[in-house]
Amino acid sequence: MKTILIVGIGTGNPEHLTVQAINALNRADVLFIPDKGAGKGDLAELRREIVARYVTNPAGRTVEYGVPKRDAANPDYGAGVDDWHAALAGRFEALLADVPDGGACAFLVWGDPGLYDSTIRIIERLGTRFAVEIIPGITAIQALTAAHGIALNRIGEPVHITTGRRLGPVHDDTVVMLDGQTAFLNADPDLDIFWGAYLGTPDQITIAGRLGDVRDEIVATRKAARERHGWIMDTYLLRKRD
Amino acid sequence: MKTILIVGIGTGNPEHLTVQAINALNRADVLFIPDKGAGKGDLAELRREIVARYVTNPAGRTVEYGVPKRDAANPDYGAGVDDWHAALAGRFEALLADVPDGGACAFLVWGDPGLYDSTIRIIERLGTRFAVEIIPGITAIQALTAAHGIALNRIGEPVHITTGRRLGPVHDDTVVMLDGQTAFLNADPDLDIFWGAYLGTPDQITIAGRLGDVRDEIVATRKAARERHGWIMDTYLLRKRD
Ligand SMILES: C[S@@+](CC[C@H](N)C(=O)[O-])C[C@H]1O[C@@H](n2cnc3c(N)ncnc32)[C@H](O)[C@@H]1O
Ligand SMILES: C[S@@+](CC[C@H](N)C(=O)[O-])C[C@H]1O[C@@H](n2cnc3c(N)ncnc32)[C@H](O)[C@@H]1O
Repeated sequence: MKTILIVGIGTGNPEHLTVQAINALNRADVLFIPDKGAGKGDLAELRREIVARYVTNPAGRTVEYGVPKRDAANPDYGAGVDDWHAALAGRFEALLADVPDGGACAFLVWGDPGLYDSTIRIIERLGTRFAVEIIPGITAIQALTAAHGIALNRIGEPVHITTGRRLGPVHDDTVVMLDGQTAFLNADPDLDIFWGAYLGTPDQITIAGRLGDVRDEIVATRKAARERHGWIMDTYLLRKRD
Repeated sequence: MKTILIVGIGTGNPEHLTVQAINALNRADVLFIPDKGAGKGDLAELRREIVARYVTNPAGRTVEYGVPKRDAANPDYGAGVDDWHAALAGRFEALLADVPDGGACAFLVWGDPGLYDSTIRIIERLGTRFAVEIIPGITAIQALTAAHGIALNRIGEPVHITTGRRLGPVHDDTVVMLDGQTAFLNADPDLDIFWGAYLGTPDQITIAGRLGDVRDEIVATRKAARERHGWIMDTYLLRKRD
């Protein structure tokens, strides 16, 4: 049996790696690094840096693989994702053929493998022929609250985690991820926002304040940063004022 | 100015420590370890083990401090917590007097400092005389999903995080923490539950299945484990069946 290690690497700071993750990377005969194509080169570069810095096992070799694109034009979001996962499962199957029998391989996953990431689901599609281990990692949510010096929840209160696409009226404290369309522009201007981009990296940007007061600054900052880097990843917390 | 490092140490596995956390612990002149009193000795022991294993800075000395108890009998939950934080702030103030000027100290915080933990809020009460840095850590939520080999969210769907006290009808996938009263007994038996206790430790226990089928087993397992250890920490995810 081959072992698949799904290793959370944190969200941009190589020092987000846990000791458990470093040990897992050093168990792998093959380390898989996605190459998400033009624009996202920084992200592949960070994974290479992590391997260079922490992998001391001379048997571990790195394999980069192209990631097929999801058909964002598919009007059925679920079906689009399903096709994309099927294509990725085929790609993974081919990669895994290369892992020695009884050996181990590692997928380096951004943040935590359990939070808005498809690696676990894609590997589930391959059936039960593999031993799968998941190594938790620091998420963008923890990087966001640490950067702002705040707690995620208020005392004893719940927290909601959602996507830009699904953001509705805000009652509980709400974290928004995967927001390509600046959904905060439709939220109550009297909420507080704690916004962060490139969290954990040397390019980290944070802005906080009353949404109505800072939203234009966030939109402008986001646009300029996106042009400069060619990509952006941002996350924010919306909270009713006390 | 003195620097206060609020360092997330993960949820029981010393290998949850990040490189950033290890480096932070090694910057500290004083490392503060709460001693939560009888029964919770295992937890103080884990913190001692972390210091022994990772702190190589000969200048770093460990100080254990007693934690005053929250008055759980106070009918006003908010006021009870407020009194307790005030008492802890007084304790912290005294501890900090011992840190050399221009030096640094570290508070070792279970899991991530932003998730259902009061350290950040207590240190806020001390005002702005200190430079405060927060180092994220692996939470019980990530330890739970990794242990079960599952993703936290369903594709593009939101996630709710709440406490046993606040658990209501479950619509979105819901994580429950701080549940002393087995609140899942009042939830729809047709939900799936992914339950875990002592996550990350050698005593880790996980149970998953249809709530109606496994809830008695969870209650019995929980009770026996709690008696054996003298304490329990458990977390679970409730999810509608597909
Ligand atoms: C596909 S999800 C992956 C999340 C990741 N698994 C985690 O645990 O954070 C990508 C989203 O995560 C958030 N994100 C990831 N890294 C980030 C970073 N360094 N700064 C800000 N947001 C980030 C953004 O909301 C982005 O749209
Ligand atoms: C005061 S909160 C602290 C949470 C912590 N800051 C974190 O990031 O996970 C304590 C609650 O966290 C959960 N918890 C913490 N450690 C755990 C563990 N090792 N196994 C299961 N649940 C745990 C339980 O729900 C417990 O009631």
